[in-house]
Amino acid sequence: MPRNTKGSQRERELVNLFHINGWAVIRAPASGGATDRELPDILAGNGNLFVAIEAKTSGGDPIYLSHEEVRALLYFARNFGATALIGVRFDAEYGDPHYANDDDSGSRFFEPDGCYRTESGSSRVKKDVAFESGRRLGDLGGC
Amino acid sequence: MPRNTKGSQRERELVNLFHINGWAVIRAPASGGATDRELPDILAGNGNLFVAIEAKTSGGDPIYLSHEEVRALLYFARNFGATALIGVRFDAEYGDPHYANDDDSGSRFFEPDGCYRTESGSSRVKKDVAFESGRRLGDLGGC
Repeated sequence: MPRNTKGSQRERELVNLFHINGWAVIRAPASGGATDRELPDILAGNGNLFVAIEAKTSGGDPIYLSHEEVRALLYFARNFGATALIGVRFDAEYGDPHYANDDDSGSRFFEPDGCYRTESGSSRVKKDVAFESGRRLGDLGGC
Repeated sequence: MPRNTKGSQRERELVNLFHINGWAVIRAPASGGATDRELPDILAGNGNLFVAIEAKTSGGDPIYLSHEEVRALLYFARNFGATALIGVRFDAEYGDPHYANDDDSGSRFFEPDGCYRTESGSSRVKKDVAFESGRRLGDLGGC
């Protein structure tokens, strides 16, 4: 599946995850903006919390976000008045215990400052780190 | 110009209006959502205020929003934690004093409860009412 298609499908799944958990959620348009402003993939609110999310998915390899992606996410979130979050999901492998009884379909969330920073300035999330220390949707209240 | 094209252009102009006034703003995707949830046209925040906007434009005739449109706007806004607003703009006519020195390009905002309700339950905004009692972007702080 082409990356963009997979990314869009992933974003729609994440929108649904927020929706079924009672959040109001909106996905940024893929294109057609009047400017070249960088937008987060998803913006969600639950009446109390507001989150701007850059969503990434992976088959298993570590997920990287460039310094520019993180900077743009933080900039939008601060202007809007939302918490910036990196939303990651690694594809499930057959029998992987991480996904047993996981109502969040393996989605985990990190504040950008909580991610490992590479020497080049990119933010990295490995699969084991995602499941060990990533926050679940139901735990975002602690942001 | 087809209505949808005109509507999209109007939404982009409204996005820009918020943007140049320092708001972080996102436009709902035209399609491609995973569900049939009704979304507002625009969601914007300035670090303090959050507004969900249904945007309408007119050449001069009164603007109508159906009961269902207003209900969906209020539902999303309440869930998200934003103020629901109807954003209207009437096309400028040559020499129309309403548009002289109007930094907002004639855009005015109403809370749904502030609109005239027709017998059928639709909300109506006439051009003269828009300029007499509509709120300008800079005055949204009083929402």
